[in-house]
Amino acid sequence: MASVRIREAKEGDCGNILRLIRELAEYEKLLDQVKITEEALRADGFGENPFYHCLVAEILPAPGQPQGQGIGSKIIRKVAEVALDKGCSQFRLAVLDWNKRAMDLYKALGAQDLTEAEGWHSFRFEREAMRELAGK
Amino acid sequence: MASVRIREAKEGDCGNILRLIRELAEYEKLLDQVKITEEALRADGFGENPFYHCLVAEILPAPGQPQGQGIGSKIIRKVAEVALDKGCSQFRLAVLDWNKRAMDLYKALGAQDLTEAEGWHSFRFEREAMRELAGK
Repeated sequence: MASVRIREAKEGDCGNILRLIRELAEYEKLLDQVKITEEALRADGFGENPFYHCLVAEILPAPGQPQGQGIGSKIIRKVAEVALDKGCSQFRLAVLDWNKRAMDLYKALGAQDLTEAEGWHSFRFEREAMRELAGK
Repeated sequence: MASVRIREAKEGDCGNILRLIRELAEYEKLLDQVKITEEALRADGFGENPFYHCLVAEILPAPGQPQGQGIGSKIIRKVAEVALDKGCSQFRLAVLDWNKRAMDLYKALGAQDLTEAEGWHSFRFEREAMRELAGK
């Protein structure tokens, strides 16, 4: 298995974080929705009252072995640990219904599909709708 | 229409906030999932790095008029305004699929049902699963 080191993100990681956000969005066929910039990532995550916290996994591939095995679950375990330390009582994820690989992983690790089990739907107001609502 | 004043919550509101959380959960048939206490609401919302922000709507019913009309959309408009002021680019809501009244309101105000439109499912790890993941 590849060797993985998980650490807190630093402001200097924002360029790579944006690259990974874009790669994920491309896989999700939602690249057109990515409007965030590196500058906004820096301001939102590394100011006085950060809007988000981020972990970075540094991966050293083991020669001759396939990449990627077990990295997702290592990150999820770490997020659970950090969340418990911060006093969180739940840990939520959003996943697309055709992304069966991710869904199977989350379920295997003990997560429940709330949309399936209880019927939760996720609603979004985008900036234009928000402006109209706020009369701005 | 009832007269509504929307203001930021104070720590002293936490008892009433908990009562309303419980009333909503009862309506959603999920009262058994409410484990938060007034003490935790105080600690989480009014410490140095608050986990949540909360608005309170004070309602003065107009005599002879039905209660409740227009209050939900007033609150949503206010949340949109606060979110824009804080630099947010989206505003999300979770709603149960049988709660057609809420869904219709959110759609009428300009929200998109992401679960329906794009297939987003919401996954949750609960405390027991988090402990197992973190080996705690």
